[in-house]
Amino acid sequence: MILAIDVGGTKMAAGLVSDDGTVAGSRRVATPQGAGAEELWKTLLALVEPFGPADAVGIGCGGPMLWPSGEVSPLNMPGWRGFPLRARLEAMYGEARIHNDAVCVAAAEHWRGAGQGSANMLGMVVSTGVGGGLVLGNRLIDGGTGNAGHIGHVVVEPDGPPCGCGGRGCLEAVARGPALVEWALAQGWKPGAAAPSRDAVPYEEDRAVTGRTLADDARAGDEVALAAFRRAGRALGLAITAATHLCDLDVVTIGGGLSQAGSLLFDPLHETLREHARMEFARRVKVVPAALGQDAGLVGAAALILAADRYA
Amino acid sequence: MILAIDVGGTKMAAGLVSDDGTVAGSRRVATPQGAGAEELWKTLLALVEPFGPADAVGIGCGGPMLWPSGEVSPLNMPGWRGFPLRARLEAMYGEARIHNDAVCVAAAEHWRGAGQGSANMLGMVVSTGVGGGLVLGNRLIDGGTGNAGHIGHVVVEPDGPPCGCGGRGCLEAVARGPALVEWALAQGWKPGAAAPSRDAVPYEEDRAVTGRTLADDARAGDEVALAAFRRAGRALGLAITAATHLCDLDVVTIGGGLSQAGSLLFDPLHETLREHARMEFARRVKVVPAALGQDAGLVGAAALILAADRYA
Repeated sequence: MILAIDVGGTKMAAGLVSDDGTVAGSRRVATPQGAGAEELWKTLLALVEPFGPADAVGIGCGGPMLWPSGEVSPLNMPGWRGFPLRARLEAMYGEARIHNDAVCVAAAEHWRGAGQGSANMLGMVVSTGVGGGLVLGNRLIDGGTGNAGHIGHVVVEPDGPPCGCGGRGCLEAVARGPALVEWALAQGWKPGAAAPSRDAVPYEEDRAVTGRTLADDARAGDEVALAAFRRAGRALGLAITAATHLCDLDVVTIGGGLSQAGSLLFDPLHETLREHARMEFARRVKVVPAALGQDAGLVGAAALILAADRYA
Repeated sequence: MILAIDVGGTKMAAGLVSDDGTVAGSRRVATPQGAGAEELWKTLLALVEPFGPADAVGIGCGGPMLWPSGEVSPLNMPGWRGFPLRARLEAMYGEARIHNDAVCVAAAEHWRGAGQGSANMLGMVVSTGVGGGLVLGNRLIDGGTGNAGHIGHVVVEPDGPPCGCGGRGCLEAVARGPALVEWALAQGWKPGAAAPSRDAVPYEEDRAVTGRTLADDARAGDEVALAAFRRAGRALGLAITAATHLCDLDVVTIGGGLSQAGSLLFDPLHETLREHARMEFARRVKVVPAALGQDAGLVGAAALILAADRYA
């Protein structure tokens, strides 16, 4: 039984994971916004304290980070810049391994999820960002600095919108949830007009407009909302085309909030793949929804320790 | 001392390679055009016969092929379709390993060329086609069917020109030598007008127009020829951006005939990389000319045997 930790800008999660990848118990807490380095650390300590001692700890954390040393500077957690997260947890638990949170999700899907049994897999997370991790020849691929798997920055529209990375036309700039919403609003989308929310409360200006609102409207037939998902699905298809030609993949798993949009996103994705991935080896790639839910990050962080032959 | 063989649609080469990767002697022969399966085989037999017996043979061959079994169907050699090249050579030499010719070039550049000392490398060949091979974590990456490294089919212009693979807008459709020439001619390029050939013979209609003619004209200031190289360099930059975000590369080596154009191709390539590969880990990738010449294919084929821990 080891401890797994999953740290992001919105929430922190921790749990005990058994040798077969089962999460035996987990806790979550909102990441304090605007907090300094030590306040963030205390929040994490309070989260893990009830689990007591553990043999080792596996950590998933938002990037970037220095890797494998694990000084983290998560984009969405300004309080941690070069914070020695791995070293502090190693001092407490004796052994600690860390990787990018999206890489952990990919490891989890390969170990215990929709990528089980495949030797060559890309695991993607499509949410407020677009990230991923690569498993090739049954081994997690780190790359030179632990940053392999950044499919969110494959360029899908060379003259497309600016990206948070400083580039332009990246997959993430087109297909992250907020980008879909922003694009649809700019095209004249009126949120909730086509599909009042599930509990029949009409859309109000002060309500958060999310990819879910957009998906509801798309399902209700809103043309702009549908076009937003087509654009994102096409972008995903182009990036997966790049990945499978480069890496000769067996499977791509797609998780994260926006992937809940289902066929709204997957249909244009598959159509684009059929159009651009034509050689026999490229046609065989299977693109499937991720199988693990919100525990994926914990399972993957645990895999860094429990299945180190493949993931560490 | 083992035998290395490099089979392509234009020429076949063979040579003896010593343990340190030195080609001790090599021979070349034109690939007979329009030849049937057994005529092609006899040509190869005559090429290797003078070398006598060898302990093993490493083979590079144009794709596609079934791998690792090595039934080859090279696009540019219609006489071989499902030809059991590896099995026939194994029967003669006892041990035979095979890989795609561009993958062999990548292995060669990593083993003895411009990628030496890097753990994460993409080796590219830009010529009549655009191919490549990946080395990650100091290991040659095969992918599920031996086809990893097909960077030529990363999409760089989603609505771009049709590609030989059946897709559209692939790097190869934009940046292969003949595509540059075709694009320039369509834009009104008059071959040789700006730069009469090196031996001062004016361009004649019946003379083969090649990427070299185009490069000569570009160096002489022909605007269309310059634009053709800018377009190809930009396409290469976009595909390398995809590769380095996905694989966190240390080095990209670029060889092949068109790479001889030097800064005509490398300047727009680097400019595009600077524009699109912005995160620290992506900015660190070094894109350099390949170091091995026409023997690269033989050296890489030999590496499949002589450095099997990394390349087989």
